[in-house]
This record gives sequence, structure tokens and C-alpha cells, in this order.
Amino acid sequence: MRPLLVLLAYKLFKDDPETVVDQALAVEVFHNFTLVHDDIMDNAPLRRGKATVHEKWDANTAILSGDVMMVKAYDMLLDAPANLKQIVQDFNACAAGVCEGQQLDMNFETLATVDESAYINMIRLKTAVLLGFSLKLGAMLAQSSKEDAELLYDFGVSIGIGFQLKDDLLDVYGDQAKFGKQVGGDIISNKKTFLLLKALELANEEQKKQLDYWLGLVNFDAVAKVEAVRAIYDAIGIEELTKAKMNEYFDHGFSDLDQLDIEEEKRASLKRFAEYLIDREH
Amino acid sequence: MRPLLVLLAYKLFKDDPETVVDQALAVEVFHNFTLVHDDIMDNAPLRRGKATVHEKWDANTAILSGDVMMVKAYDMLLDAPANLKQIVQDFNACAAGVCEGQQLDMNFETLATVDESAYINMIRLKTAVLLGFSLKLGAMLAQSSKEDAELLYDFGVSIGIGFQLKDDLLDVYGDQAKFGKQVGGDIISNKKTFLLLKALELANEEQKKQLDYWLGLVNFDAVAKVEAVRAIYDAIGIEELTKAKMNEYFDHGFSDLDQLDIEEEKRASLKRFAEYLIDREH
Repeated sequence: MRPLLVLLAYKLFKDDPETVVDQALAVEVFHNFTLVHDDIMDNAPLRRGKATVHEKWDANTAILSGDVMMVKAYDMLLDAPANLKQIVQDFNACAAGVCEGQQLDMNFETLATVDESAYINMIRLKTAVLLGFSLKLGAMLAQSSKEDAELLYDFGVSIGIGFQLKDDLLDVYGDQAKFGKQVGGDIISNKKTFLLLKALELANEEQKKQLDYWLGLVNFDAVAKVEAVRAIYDAIGIEELTKAKMNEYFDHGFSDLDQLDIEEEKRASLKRFAEYLIDREH
Repeated sequence: MRPLLVLLAYKLFKDDPETVVDQALAVEVFHNFTLVHDDIMDNAPLRRGKATVHEKWDANTAILSGDVMMVKAYDMLLDAPANLKQIVQDFNACAAGVCEGQQLDMNFETLATVDESAYINMIRLKTAVLLGFSLKLGAMLAQSSKEDAELLYDFGVSIGIGFQLKDDLLDVYGDQAKFGKQVGGDIISNKKTFLLLKALELANEEQKKQLDYWLGLVNFDAVAKVEAVRAIYDAIGIEELTKAKMNEYFDHGFSDLDQLDIEEEKRASLKRFAEYLIDREH
């Protein structure tokens, strides 16, 4: 999806996206580098249904091949037809942000709870800035105005935060038939999602006691835990709250899009693409 | 030492090295990134007498902070006054080479032996290319001719290989009073140095049997092992062989230096600096 965002943004301003395919792919190589290193840190056995690099080979090979992928990503940016310095500078800021987001995510695991703004900041860094950068990269490659490049960046970041909130939501309220992963997986693993953090923040004394009970159980029936926690979420109104927050970000993104100085037809097509992404249930 | 090489090379062509200090430091930040990741892979508890990053914090923190250091290194290159694209391209090639060298070094641990050219290639990638790049970076920043930049690169690589061979040599034949580490440490740990590889290649049947005996022992007296292996090296003439190979690289480096299109005074000063480095016993 990320290279596609680069090319889509480029196409808003220029008609020869085939000239920037390498730079578009750089973003995907970078993204995959972060997955290889994240999988080591998260001890993940599987990625896209296959053994992770550190499982198939070993951690050292995964560290090193991740490092080389990062170098490769920089290499693929170098034939940019314009704005090389700005592009590498923004890429650096994005890359450092993604690393910081991963560190925050790991730190959060050791905390009892995290407030809303800290959580939003973490998902902004870990996930959203790379979507924003992808769009801005397309704009910079096409030598758009600075204003349009920034609007596309902000659009991407807002949509990215909205996506992540939607992901959190689908885990609990998604349709199992359409959702790729096990519905309730985040509840089973006590993952600190927006839903859980808001529930911990807003629960009354009795709800807090019940939540703590389910979070503290070592041996439990998975279906019973998912049902019980979802019932607490329902009582507090977590689904509506999360949807409201998610829509706040989507709306913010679309208002950036409205300000772009591009033809209406192109704006409409970009909007449709974003809506398509937003409506996905997996 | 590496930033110093950048500035020395720059000074051969221009008189304002203070303008490229950030780019010189980028090389050191990159080098330290590789040390942080290498220390994880080698399970090293200490670096420069202090706890390594993964020991003081944890492996995940060491992976991530290494990643961010690499991004920082790229960032420090960006204000280069000239040749940015070429600089990042060469830096990428160097960085990928260093990673490949580390992978080869790890692979070698699992092999019974390694031939000379494979060993030289490993130390070239793991250690020498970064010295070559440091010098070439100084030349590129000063907008030297391409020929001079390449000569400085080749000079740095040759001197770097010579250094590493000297390091291998000092471990066995160094003066304990001047040598920083324990003399014989490589023998005790069965490290595949140039000396051991050449000995395995050139030993007669009886010497080979003795070497295999000492390499295979799990419990042994360290002093006895060092003395026994050194005696085999002496019988084969390993010290002279290694010195000859080392001098071959140093000579090659100095002949590159002779071809540089710079003032004789500057050439002499660079030669003295290289000789100073070569004569160090630690």
C-alpha cells in the first residue's frame, strides 16, 4: 500500500509515475526492515503466514539483514529526480519516528495504563508518519508546492491514526467472517489498545474491579474473557467513543484533502481511494 | 580515528575543515551503530571497559537505538557542501559492505577453516572499507578530483587490511607491556585469525595433528596452549608470512599515496600519520 501512496501522490502533480517507482519501493523496503526488527523484539514466530526471519534463520541474521534492508532503502531513494536533500531529511525524521514509536509501544507493555494522548502519539509515530511520508514523498518527487506536500503529509498521518483506531475497534467489534485475525485477540492478550485504555480511564469502581479481574487471570476461557470484557466496553460505550475519535481523525484528514490545490477530479479520486481503505474490514 | 581521517583528507584539498565536522562525525556515529549491533550478535558484555548497551538495557533497546544511530549518521551527512548524492551512494555501499563483513565473520565461526582470500575479503569488508570511505568522504567533501578520491579510498582500504593483519600478529607476538589486551587471547579462544588459517593451510601432518589437538581441548591450561600453538606457528614460519602479507598491503597503500596529486609537504604529513598508526602496538 505504501508505494501506491507515493505513486498516487505523484500522479496528482505529474503524469510519469513510472520514473519514481524505485523511490516508491524504498518506502516498502524500509517498512519491511522495521517488520524484521520488530518481529525479533516481539518474539513473533509468524509474519504473513510464514516463519519470521529470526525464526527461519536466527536473531543475528535478522538484525543484520534488517540493517542491510535499511541501507537498501536509502539507496533506492537516491535516483530521485528532484529534492534529494529534503527527501532524505524527511525520510530520516520519519525513520527515527518509527523507531521511537516502537520503543514507546514496548515501554507501554510494562505500564499499568497509558493516557489517551500518549497512546495516540505512539500510533502516530509507529504507524501513521510513514503513511504521511509516503504521500509527501510522492509530492516532493513531483516538485509540488510545499503547502501541498505538507497537506498530503498531514492527510496521511490523520488517516493513519484513524486506521489504527479502526484496527483496534475491529478486533473487538469486527465481523469474524471478514476480519483476517481472530476477533478478540487483543482482549485475550491484554493488549493496550485505545479501547482498553479508555475503558480503564472511564470505568466505575465495579467495572474497574471486573476489568482488573479479567486482566489478571493467567488461566481463563478465551471466549468467556472476550465476552466479559466486551460487555464492560458496551456498558461504558467504548465502541461509540472509539468511533467518534476515529472519525475525528478521518474528518481531519479529509479537510486537509479539501485544501489541496489540485483538480477536482483528482481530489475526488484520492478521496474515493481513502474511503476504500477506510471501509476495509481487514 | 575515523573522523580524523575525514578531516585529514579534506585538509589535503581545502583549508576549512571546520565546515565538515558534522559529516566527519557521521562516520563515527555509523561505526558506533555497528558496534552496538555487533555486540548483541557476539554476546559481548563489555565495550571500552563499560557494559554494552544490550547488557545495560536489553537487546531490544540495543537493536532500536542502533537503528536510530544509523538514521542519525545519514542525517549528519546531509549538510555536505557538495557531492551529496555521490556521498550517500558511497556511504550506502560501505555500510552494506560492513554488514556483509560481519555476516561473513559469523559464518566463519561455524567452518573448520577458511582460505586466505576469503579471510582477507572478510576483514576488508568488516574493517577496511570504512577507513577507505572516511578518507574518500573527506576528498569528496573538498571536491577533489575523482582520481584522488579513489586513490585515498584504496589507500585507506589497504592500510585497513594491513592494520587488521597487524592486530592478528600482535595478539601472538606482541609485547604484553604495550599490548592492551591479553597476549594469546585469540589462541585461547580458537579465533580464526590470519595466523591460524595459514597454519592450518601449511602445517605438515604432525603439526596439523598437534593443532587439532589444542583446538579441540575443552579444558586446558591457557599458558600451555598459547606456548604450544606459538611453537607450531614458529616452526611453520607464520610470523614472517603474516608480516610479509601485512607489508604487502602497507606498501600497496603507500604506492597509492605516492600517486596522489597533492603538494609534497602534505603527502609527507599524511605518510607520517599512517606510519604513526602502523607503528602503534595497541
